[in-house]
Amino acid sequence: METRGKLFGLGVGPGDPELLTLKAVRLIAESPVLAYPAPADGTDSMARAIAAPHIPPGKIEIVIETPMIPGNFPADTVYDRYAAEIAEHLSAGRDVAVLCEGDPFLYGSFMYLYSRLSATFETDVVPGVSSIVACAARAGQPLVSRNQVMSILPAPLDEDELRQRIQAADAVAIMKVGRHLAKVRRVLKDIGRLTGAVYIERATLADERVMPLADVEDATAPYFSMILVRTPEAVDA
Amino acid sequence: METRGKLFGLGVGPGDPELLTLKAVRLIAESPVLAYPAPADGTDSMARAIAAPHIPPGKIEIVIETPMIPGNFPADTVYDRYAAEIAEHLSAGRDVAVLCEGDPFLYGSFMYLYSRLSATFETDVVPGVSSIVACAARAGQPLVSRNQVMSILPAPLDEDELRQRIQAADAVAIMKVGRHLAKVRRVLKDIGRLTGAVYIERATLADERVMPLADVEDATAPYFSMILVRTPEAVDA
Repeated sequence: METRGKLFGLGVGPGDPELLTLKAVRLIAESPVLAYPAPADGTDSMARAIAAPHIPPGKIEIVIETPMIPGNFPADTVYDRYAAEIAEHLSAGRDVAVLCEGDPFLYGSFMYLYSRLSATFETDVVPGVSSIVACAARAGQPLVSRNQVMSILPAPLDEDELRQRIQAADAVAIMKVGRHLAKVRRVLKDIGRLTGAVYIERATLADERVMPLADVEDATAPYFSMILVRTPEAVDA
Repeated sequence: METRGKLFGLGVGPGDPELLTLKAVRLIAESPVLAYPAPADGTDSMARAIAAPHIPPGKIEIVIETPMIPGNFPADTVYDRYAAEIAEHLSAGRDVAVLCEGDPFLYGSFMYLYSRLSATFETDVVPGVSSIVACAARAGQPLVSRNQVMSILPAPLDEDELRQRIQAADAVAIMKVGRHLAKVRRVLKDIGRLTGAVYIERATLADERVMPLADVEDATAPYFSMILVRTPEAVDA
């Protein structure tokens, strides 16, 4: 007899609680255990905040504390420990839903739990609205059409690589801007692409900011920010 | 007095009606007019089929007939005509929701209506679950993590360009496979990347197919198919 619980990786979208899918909302309601990442400094979990209006009372909640050191990534031991905690619930027959900002498999930390648990426990990944398409929607700027090529670039890449990759694509989404804001702006200015680049911060949230990158005077950006760049030719009429 | 209707571009996701967002479902219910693309050969609209369980009776429906000629794209005159039809409803104070497979701004034909109407009428683009993240979820294969680079490539690109771009990225999603299946398979085999490439057809639908590309014996693929490729190094543990 199969009494094991099922593991769900749920994309909860970019920020607006109305951008959860019906499936994510249903599985949050049905799962007795919810897990979600939160910074180890005690600040709130973005994933939980997004899903909050859809979380009924009485859930067992697991806060996956992930130290965010710029340029580094949480140690494997962190995920070993939380995977073990989740496995106990699954073994006891309780479904566990892991809440993931945006989509679970696009720069999502869920993949570290997935790699540890999916061979042992039945797992279902529920895709979510990624921050990339959300930022494009809020900026009112289509990403790609027809036979255009798009690249997704993490801002921590070095200047030369950023320059080369931006020039090689019709449209680019630059993720994880944070303390790399000045570098990205410099690269875009160097290659004559600052005009037309759009800066989006906290897309679809109440305190969202959308503006031309050329007008952004901040020295750094929050983690949840993005820059969208398109070639002039890529703008379809 | 403002009596104009509002234009909505609604991402309805990759196929499973449960992957609509709450916001898309609400706006479908609230909008008196729905528009959606359908092939000009009289076959059904995929976008409408996805949204069907959420469409109440009594809507005015506009079928945007788009001739799909491989290698070509619908003529501008097609979108001029439908934009004019939609504008009449908006001018008469009726909200119009345009249903878009996946996300409206990622290879979505909504952008041709957006470019014609958004300067005149209030417009809201509601991002959706893209086929890319849906295919990754169904394949059980994370896309990118950490500081990895991802590229989105249309299969119609020529062999040399495909080869070069696939080799330059940590992960690649190849869209619009269709009649380019054999070419893509040949390119991947040439560069030693056929192993590990995953083929996904009609992701999240009842007749979904997910299999190693090396096992696909079909000569061509349907329009709604995708190939995901990752570098071996990109697989995080």
